[in-house]
Amino acid sequence: MGNIREKSLELHKQAKGKLSVELKVELNNADDLSLAYSPGVAEPCTEIHQHPEKIYDYTIKGNLVGIISDGTAVLGLGNIGGAASMPVLEGKAALFKAFANVDAFPIALNTTDPEQIVQIVKAMEPTFGGINLEDISAPNCFIIEERLKKEMNIPVFHDDQHGTAIVTAAGLINALKVVNKKLEDITIVVNGAGAAGIAIAKLLHELGVDDIIMCDSKGSIYQGRTNGMNTVKESIAQITNKNNAAGSLKEVIKGADVFIGVSVAGALTQEMIGTMNENPVIFAMANPNPEIMPAEAISAGAAVIGTGRSDLPNQVNNVLAFPGIFKGALQVLASEINEQMKLAAVYAIADLVGPEELTNDYVIPNAFDSRVAEAVATAVAQAAIETGVARKNLDAKTVTI
Amino acid sequence: MGNIREKSLELHKQAKGKLSVELKVELNNADDLSLAYSPGVAEPCTEIHQHPEKIYDYTIKGNLVGIISDGTAVLGLGNIGGAASMPVLEGKAALFKAFANVDAFPIALNTTDPEQIVQIVKAMEPTFGGINLEDISAPNCFIIEERLKKEMNIPVFHDDQHGTAIVTAAGLINALKVVNKKLEDITIVVNGAGAAGIAIAKLLHELGVDDIIMCDSKGSIYQGRTNGMNTVKESIAQITNKNNAAGSLKEVIKGADVFIGVSVAGALTQEMIGTMNENPVIFAMANPNPEIMPAEAISAGAAVIGTGRSDLPNQVNNVLAFPGIFKGALQVLASEINEQMKLAAVYAIADLVGPEELTNDYVIPNAFDSRVAEAVATAVAQAAIETGVARKNLDAKTVTI
Repeated sequence: MGNIREKSLELHKQAKGKLSVELKVELNNADDLSLAYSPGVAEPCTEIHQHPEKIYDYTIKGNLVGIISDGTAVLGLGNIGGAASMPVLEGKAALFKAFANVDAFPIALNTTDPEQIVQIVKAMEPTFGGINLEDISAPNCFIIEERLKKEMNIPVFHDDQHGTAIVTAAGLINALKVVNKKLEDITIVVNGAGAAGIAIAKLLHELGVDDIIMCDSKGSIYQGRTNGMNTVKESIAQITNKNNAAGSLKEVIKGADVFIGVSVAGALTQEMIGTMNENPVIFAMANPNPEIMPAEAISAGAAVIGTGRSDLPNQVNNVLAFPGIFKGALQVLASEINEQMKLAAVYAIADLVGPEELTNDYVIPNAFDSRVAEAVATAVAQAAIETGVARKNLDAKTVTI
Repeated sequence: MGNIREKSLELHKQAKGKLSVELKVELNNADDLSLAYSPGVAEPCTEIHQHPEKIYDYTIKGNLVGIISDGTAVLGLGNIGGAASMPVLEGKAALFKAFANVDAFPIALNTTDPEQIVQIVKAMEPTFGGINLEDISAPNCFIIEERLKKEMNIPVFHDDQHGTAIVTAAGLINALKVVNKKLEDITIVVNGAGAAGIAIAKLLHELGVDDIIMCDSKGSIYQGRTNGMNTVKESIAQITNKNNAAGSLKEVIKGADVFIGVSVAGALTQEMIGTMNENPVIFAMANPNPEIMPAEAISAGAAVIGTGRSDLPNQVNNVLAFPGIFKGALQVLASEINEQMKLAAVYAIADLVGPEELTNDYVIPNAFDSRVAEAVATAVAQAAIETGVARKNLDAKTVTI
């Protein structure tokens, strides 16, 4: 890490950040100026004033995502504030561009008040075609996303929740093919009830997994538990833990088919894996150090293991999801990113690993697989059209909103 | 205009707006990703968390201007809303880049509540190194700018006020050389008491003009006038109209040396010019059609005439001011753009027209004069240092804030 530390600081310092704002039009002489600025610019302004949907024709809005953070849950660093989140937000914007040619811009806020954040993001709706919420801690991330989804007419997506859930689900679908099990038959333990854990449980539930047990630091989450609960955990308890099992991770993991960790290094032991059902699947995604290292998990009997790390097989990397999801949503001017669009992304990612390629070390496409963003975008756009949230057909010349 | 109209719409539609967000670093493989994003990005985040001033080393903040509008006073189009202002804001950002290599980003808001705008812009302070307020109508523009200047630690500048005032003042200084008059001896009538007119009167007062009469649609503004006044007009009446002259423009312009119009086409007549002092100087800046056309003004006796138009001599174009002003302010991390910095910009612009070049048709540098932004930036940075608002010397390796 010492090497990465120095290299990263050097990279950021030399370039003074990672983004620049560039011109798509020429501005070399008075004629250029008279078209791009005064007096010619009055024409697109007037058109948009008279026909609001034309903002997608004449401005950058249609390919522009705002990346918003209050800096309360930055990487594994916690609540370090909006200013200190800027390198992450710039990096996220860079990924949008590099992986899907979507323009994205970081907005770091110095307020953590959810109501104020809602008002700020809503007020910026004329500017952006979509909103990616980033590194906002639970439970505010749930409150803010829910409000914005209801109150805005553009897609709002909290990547730390849904991006992670989508890629995990894609990996799980393929891992189950390797071990020859079915979603509807298995028991999954999700360890960690923050933003990502909750979203994973919800998405797996939608995918048809019948038996999910969520754990936090106090053990399994069940209806009627009294300590360390909140409205989000109470809500998730309604659709998980069908036998209302109480107990520690060590107790409830017995007999489970899958462990999904979004918790802390060391949370899963070889002994626990030994008590799981045969051919257990492990996604140990704590960063930078997973709940258990792959070599240890495999020697304890794990059939498939994924982590969050780029230097290990089966990396659960959000970059497989968010660039293509927004690209697809923006292509058809979707008014939201709904559950069907997320599920379409899950299967698009999973399907990129063909049956003949599938092994226990390759259930998730590589982050740099150049097919991914386009495949995800196409599937997501199609799902948007099918579910009636697209406001433009892929081939249509005009927007209808 | 028909031609410009079609060409402008075509330009905007083909490019889908005028800006893109691009990468300053490479993102081609897992190594790149590990430095620009996880895990390496944790390092600049941590550094900024521990040493807030390092945000200027590791992010785009130090060269980034936010261009903020509520769309209430867009060009000559009036209150067309935030969304319809986007082409102007993008154009403005394009000018920042093309003329001064400053990154700038448009934020169009769908609220016109000044308190909410203040809260929104303040909350984005971690993101931007400076704020350019754009196309916000009076009197809210005064309220918003004053609050933000007080409550933010980065430069806040309402270009429609100060940019116009600075370039007008530079042109006036040179025009007075042509007619051999002095600032302290002349009488100036400013017609139009919106954002630009008020700012022009204030800046000319600071430059040492002793006798300024402001007019609005109801005639001259004077202490004790009762109709059509507001707090801003009452305040400007304190420093202008020293003889407290009441009357229409036609009446108060008699004997004046200079007419400055930021009002409407046709507001100034040949007859009025005929009643002015000898060798009158006329800045007729109504857009797109000036208060009087240059040929008419000259045949009525005007010695120098400037307008807002690029197809006529002596164009008062804000692009001569704002790119260099922000460039200079950002170079030294100025905490504000103060009056001395504005005055430095005035003289830097004026001085670019050398004594041997000066004619009645050339008192203002051309908008595409490549020397302007750098000259303005250097003068503004120097003024910031001299007035103690610079937080970094031009040569210093580190920021001290």
